[in-house]
Amino acid sequence: MQALSPLDQASINAIRFLSVDAIQKAKSGHPGLPLGFAPMAYDLFARHLRHSPKNPYWAGRDRFVLSAGHGSALLYSLLHLSGYDLSLDDLKAFRQWGSKTPGHPEYGHTAGVEMTTGPLGQGLSTSVGMAIAQKHLAARFNRPGFPLLDYHIFVVVGDGCMQEGISAEASSLAGHLGLNNLIVLYDDNQITIDGRTRLSFSEDVVQRYEAYGWFCQSLQGDGHDLDGLDQAIAQAKAQNKPALIKIQSIIGFGSPKQDSSGAHGSPLGDGMEATRKALNWPYSPFEVPSEVYEHFSRLQAAWAKEEADWNQLFAAYAQAHPDLAKAFKEAEKNQWDVSLLDQLEFKVGEKIATRQASGHVLAAVMPKSPNFMGGSADLTPSNNTHFPGAEDFNAQEPQGRYLRFGVREHAMGAIINGIGLSKMLKAYGATFLSFSDYLLPSLRVAALSKYPGIFIFTHDSIGLGEDGPTHQPIEQVGYLRALPGLVSFRPADAYETREAWRFALNHQGPVCLALSRQGLPVLDQTKLGSATQGVARGGYILSDRQDFQVLLLATGSEVSLALEAQKRLDQAGTPARVVSLPSVELFEAQEKQYQAQVVPPSCKQRIVIEAGLIRGWEGYIGEQGRFIGMRSFGASAPAADLFQHFGITVEAVVRAAQEMVSA
Amino acid sequence: MQALSPLDQASINAIRFLSVDAIQKAKSGHPGLPLGFAPMAYDLFARHLRHSPKNPYWAGRDRFVLSAGHGSALLYSLLHLSGYDLSLDDLKAFRQWGSKTPGHPEYGHTAGVEMTTGPLGQGLSTSVGMAIAQKHLAARFNRPGFPLLDYHIFVVVGDGCMQEGISAEASSLAGHLGLNNLIVLYDDNQITIDGRTRLSFSEDVVQRYEAYGWFCQSLQGDGHDLDGLDQAIAQAKAQNKPALIKIQSIIGFGSPKQDSSGAHGSPLGDGMEATRKALNWPYSPFEVPSEVYEHFSRLQAAWAKEEADWNQLFAAYAQAHPDLAKAFKEAEKNQWDVSLLDQLEFKVGEKIATRQASGHVLAAVMPKSPNFMGGSADLTPSNNTHFPGAEDFNAQEPQGRYLRFGVREHAMGAIINGIGLSKMLKAYGATFLSFSDYLLPSLRVAALSKYPGIFIFTHDSIGLGEDGPTHQPIEQVGYLRALPGLVSFRPADAYETREAWRFALNHQGPVCLALSRQGLPVLDQTKLGSATQGVARGGYILSDRQDFQVLLLATGSEVSLALEAQKRLDQAGTPARVVSLPSVELFEAQEKQYQAQVVPPSCKQRIVIEAGLIRGWEGYIGEQGRFIGMRSFGASAPAADLFQHFGITVEAVVRAAQEMVSA
Repeated sequence: MQALSPLDQASINAIRFLSVDAIQKAKSGHPGLPLGFAPMAYDLFARHLRHSPKNPYWAGRDRFVLSAGHGSALLYSLLHLSGYDLSLDDLKAFRQWGSKTPGHPEYGHTAGVEMTTGPLGQGLSTSVGMAIAQKHLAARFNRPGFPLLDYHIFVVVGDGCMQEGISAEASSLAGHLGLNNLIVLYDDNQITIDGRTRLSFSEDVVQRYEAYGWFCQSLQGDGHDLDGLDQAIAQAKAQNKPALIKIQSIIGFGSPKQDSSGAHGSPLGDGMEATRKALNWPYSPFEVPSEVYEHFSRLQAAWAKEEADWNQLFAAYAQAHPDLAKAFKEAEKNQWDVSLLDQLEFKVGEKIATRQASGHVLAAVMPKSPNFMGGSADLTPSNNTHFPGAEDFNAQEPQGRYLRFGVREHAMGAIINGIGLSKMLKAYGATFLSFSDYLLPSLRVAALSKYPGIFIFTHDSIGLGEDGPTHQPIEQVGYLRALPGLVSFRPADAYETREAWRFALNHQGPVCLALSRQGLPVLDQTKLGSATQGVARGGYILSDRQDFQVLLLATGSEVSLALEAQKRLDQAGTPARVVSLPSVELFEAQEKQYQAQVVPPSCKQRIVIEAGLIRGWEGYIGEQGRFIGMRSFGASAPAADLFQHFGITVEAVVRAAQEMVSA
Repeated sequence: MQALSPLDQASINAIRFLSVDAIQKAKSGHPGLPLGFAPMAYDLFARHLRHSPKNPYWAGRDRFVLSAGHGSALLYSLLHLSGYDLSLDDLKAFRQWGSKTPGHPEYGHTAGVEMTTGPLGQGLSTSVGMAIAQKHLAARFNRPGFPLLDYHIFVVVGDGCMQEGISAEASSLAGHLGLNNLIVLYDDNQITIDGRTRLSFSEDVVQRYEAYGWFCQSLQGDGHDLDGLDQAIAQAKAQNKPALIKIQSIIGFGSPKQDSSGAHGSPLGDGMEATRKALNWPYSPFEVPSEVYEHFSRLQAAWAKEEADWNQLFAAYAQAHPDLAKAFKEAEKNQWDVSLLDQLEFKVGEKIATRQASGHVLAAVMPKSPNFMGGSADLTPSNNTHFPGAEDFNAQEPQGRYLRFGVREHAMGAIINGIGLSKMLKAYGATFLSFSDYLLPSLRVAALSKYPGIFIFTHDSIGLGEDGPTHQPIEQVGYLRALPGLVSFRPADAYETREAWRFALNHQGPVCLALSRQGLPVLDQTKLGSATQGVARGGYILSDRQDFQVLLLATGSEVSLALEAQKRLDQAGTPARVVSLPSVELFEAQEKQYQAQVVPPSCKQRIVIEAGLIRGWEGYIGEQGRFIGMRSFGASAPAADLFQHFGITVEAVVRAAQEMVSA
C-alpha cells in the first residue's frame, strides 16, 4: 500500500470534515461511515466514475449508489466537491426542512442522487435492476466501435445491507445473471448499532458471494488503500461476474469514538476538536482548502471531456446506425404507445379472469414495446405475464426482455425500481396479491420516489379458492390504496383491465394491478358506463337507474355481482345505481364535483361490496350504509363456496338494500 | 443404496396415493412434492421422529415442519397414518370448506401441524425460532441424566424456500447461533413453477450454507435412499452446527408429468391411472393395505412407549430437581405475572418517550420472567429493548435471554413466532415502525395462526425527525390495525404503555406496540381518565367537559396535543371531550354501548388527530368531522419543525374545532 499523496489526503479529509461539520451543525446524523469510508469513496469519484455533474442524467454515466444511505453526508460532500448543484449552504442545511440534503438520500430531490436509500438492502437490490437495465440496453444499442452504454454500477454497502434478506435474493440473481457491470464495495467495518457485528453476524460473506457466483476480493489497509482499490476494480471489470470488494474500514476513523458503535449514528460533539487534531485538519467548519476545490475542478473538466467525447461518439453512431440512434432517442423519451391497446376487444358476457385480460394486454403491447421488460417471481403461468416472442433475459441473451425473478418477490420489487431508474426502460413484475407483503418495502420506496414500475398482483381475493387463507389477500388492497404516491387498480373486467394498463403504461410512478384468478364476465361497453372514460377517473357510474334509492359501490370481481343485484332490485322495485371504483386513489384525486356526481352525498343508502376488509371504506359507507365483504381471514375451499360462506353474494346485497330502504 | 423393503415400499406408496387421491378428489392441490418426497418423509416419521400423535403438544417431541407447505397432502397422509386425529374422511375432504385438511397446513386447525406454512420461507425461518427455544429450554431444564428436552426440529424445504430472503436471514443467524438441533431436508428437485430451477437459480446452495456455518451433506438416490438419510441424520446430530441435507428428489415421481413443472401444482387427472401402474399400486382411491396400517400401529406403540418413558423420566426429575420441575410446569402454563407492572410509577408531567417507558416495563418484567426472551434487529439502544441483567443468547450461552437478531427484521418476525410455538416461552422483538413492512409477512402468519409474540415498533411517526421519510412511518399503524387477529397499540404516555404491555403479556396472539421516539408528558392518572381502566378497552374518555361541543379523538403522541387544545378551547368557550384510542381494534371489540358512551353517535363534531394517514379513520370522522394528520410522506427535519409544517399542532386543532362549531 502506497502512502497517500498530500492532495489525495487533503481531498479525503475535506470530504470527511464537510460531512462531520454538517452532522455537527444539524445535531443529527451518522459520522461513522463518512470518516471511515471517505478514502474509498474519494477514490471512486476521483479515479473511476464517469459522470456529468452538470447533466446528472447523462445516459452514459457510471452509477454510484450509496446503499448504506445513512452515510448521506459522505455522498453530499462528494456531490458538492464534484460540482453537482449542491452548495456549501446546502451542506449547512443538512437534515433541515426544505433542504436538498435530507437525512437519507432521496431520488429526484438532490442532483446526483441515483436512488433513494436508507431502508437497508434496497440500494444494493435496486442496483441489480440498474445492472440488468445496463446489460439489456448495451446489448441492444452498443455496436462495434460504439460502446455507447458501457457504464458500471458502483455500490457501497455496509453490514446492514449484507444481512438483509432482500440483498441475498438480489445478489443470488445477480450472480445467476452474470452481471459483471455491478461492482459492490462492502464496508466491512465490523460495527453495527448493537456493537461488534460478531454479536449476530459471523458468516463468511465472501464465501457466500462466491456461492452466488460472484467474483470476490478483499482489500487490506483499513480502507485507505487507494491503489489496492484501483487494482481490485480493474480486476472486477475483467470478469464475467458481479464483483464484491470487501474493505475493512474503521468506522469513525480519527474520532475519539473510532471503531465503536458510538461512532455510527450521533454527531461527534465534543470529539470534533480531537478529530480535527488526529487527522491534522486545521480548517474551520465547512472550510475547504482551495487546492481541493482546484483538484475537483480539474476532475470536472476531465468528466466534461468524457461526456463531450461521448456526444461525438453518439453523433458518429447516428451516422453509422441511424435507426438505432433513433430508437435510442425514443427510449429516452420514456413513453409508451397506448394505442396498441385499442385493438384489444373482448366478447361481452364471456368470462375472462382479469389476470388473463392482463395477459392479453401484454400480448398486444410487449412485442411492439422494446423498452418494456417484465416477468414474474416464479408464477408465470398463474400471473399471465409471458408474452408472444418473449425471450428470457440472461447472461447469454441480455437482449431478452422476459425476467425470471425466481421466488424472490422482494428483490423483484427493487429490481423493477432499478430498471425504471434507467429512464430508458420500464419494467413489470408479478406475484400473488397476498405476497405483495413480501415486497412492500420496495413498493414504499417506489411510491416515495415516484419510480415508474408496474406491479401485477393476481389472485386478488378469496376467489383464489382452495389454496386457503395464507394465499388469500384480504387486507392488501387496502394497504396499496393507503400508500401515497402509489396508484392501485382492482379492475372489474377485461375492459377495465385494459384501461388500467393504459393508465399504468405512461404513469410516472408505481402502479399496482390487483387481478382476479377467476373468470369475470366482460361488461357491455355499449350499454354500461364506459371503462375507457371511467377507469382513468378512478370511479364512474357503471349502470344507473332513475331515482335510485340505493348506491352499490363495488370493485373488481364484485362489480358483476353488484350488477346482478341491481337487476334483482329492479324486480323488487328498488332502483339502484352501480358505481365501479377500480382506483379509489384516482377517484379521490378528481374534482369534488365529479365525485359528488358519481357518489352523491345526498344518497346515504350505500352498499360497498368488495371481497376485502372494510378498513378504508368507512367514508363511503357513512353512518347508514352497509358493507358486504370480508371480516376475517379466508379459508380453504372452492371459490364459489367461499363467497357463499363469507356472505358475499347477490342475495346478501339485495337483502341489505331492502333492509335499508324499508328501515 | 439398499433396495426398499416391501413394507417400506408399500408405506411410501400409501403416503403417495393417499396424497394424490385427495388432490384428485379436491380437483386441486400439489402432487409433485408428495410423489417425489414421500420416501424421505416416510423415513423421518418411521425411523426418526419422537412424537405423540395422541398428545400432539407433548413437550418432549421432535418437531416436523413442512416449510414447503404446498405439499400439505403429504403431511396430512403422514398424520393420518401416524394416528393423529385425522381420519380418511378428513383426507377425502381435502381443501373443502370446514375440513381439517386445508390447502396449506394451518396451525391450531389440524392436530400435528406444528406451524402454518405456505408463504415461502416462513416455515424454515420460524423453525429457527423453534430451535432457539429448544436450546434455551434445554439449557435451563436439562440436567445430567435428565435430557428432558433434547428434541430436534426437522424441516422440509424446497427451492422456493431457499430463494426467499427471509430464509437467508434466518439461516445466517442459525449458523451464527450454532443451532445443531435444526436439521433441514432440502428437496432440490430442480423444478419450480416456471420450469427448471436453473432458469433463475444457479447458486451453490451447499456452499452458501457452509458460509453460514452449517454442516451440509448431499444424498444420492433420487430421494429414495432411506439408509443414506439415516446416516446423514446421525451425522447431523453429531455436529455443533445446524445441518442441511440436500436431496435431489424427482418431482411427481411415477406420474406422467414427473420431473416437470406440470407435476407441481395440478391434480394428475388422466395421469392417475398411469401413476398407479408405474408405481405398481393396485389399490383403489383412498385404500390403504392393512399391512401399512399395521406397520404404523407398531410405530404408534413405539412412540407411546417413548412418551411413557419420558413421563417416567419427568417423575424422577421432579424428585431430583423439584424446583426445576415446578418451573417447567410453570413455563407450560404460559402465563405472565402482570403484577410486576404495578410497581411502575411515573412522574406526572415528566417527558418520557413511550419507547423509554417500554424499556422501564422490560426492566420491571424481564428479570422476574424467566420464560420471556427478546431483543432487537440491531436497534437495541433506539428500541429500548435491553434489560437489567440481560445476557445474550448464543451458542456458548444458550441460557441467555437477550436476542441479537442482527439487521434481519423479517427473520426476527418468524423467530418470534417460532419461540412462541414452544408454548413454554414467549418472545418480543423490535425495530423502527417504518421497517415493520420488512416483517409484515411473518406478522400476517402470526395473526392468522394466533401465535403469541410482542412486536415493539419504535419511532412511530414524523416525531422521528431528521432521518426523513424513508424512516418515518405514516401508513404502518393503519396496516397493523387492519390485520385481523393482531392487536396493536399506540399509547399516549408512559402509563398507557405500561397498560398496553399488561394486555400484551398475557394475550394469546400477536401484539404490536407503536412507540414514540420523542418524550411525551406523563398524564395525571388521578385527574384524567385512568389508563389502567381504559387501555384494555382500547379507547376511553381521557378528559371530559360538560356539554362538550367537540370530540377530540387522538392516539399516541397526539393525545397530549389534544389535551392542550382542549385547554385552549376551554378558554375560547368551546368545551371539548378528549378520547384516547390506544387500540382501535380493542375499542371496536367492546360492546356497542361502551363505544357509544365514549364516542357518542350524536356528536358529529369530531376531530381525529394522529400523525399518520387518514385511511381507517373515516368512520370516526364522519361526514362533518375533521382530520389532523399526515396526507403525504414525511420529510427530513427536526421533529418540532415537521409537526409545524405538516400542520399537526394545537393551533390547527383549535382552529378546526372553532370552524366546526361556528359552521
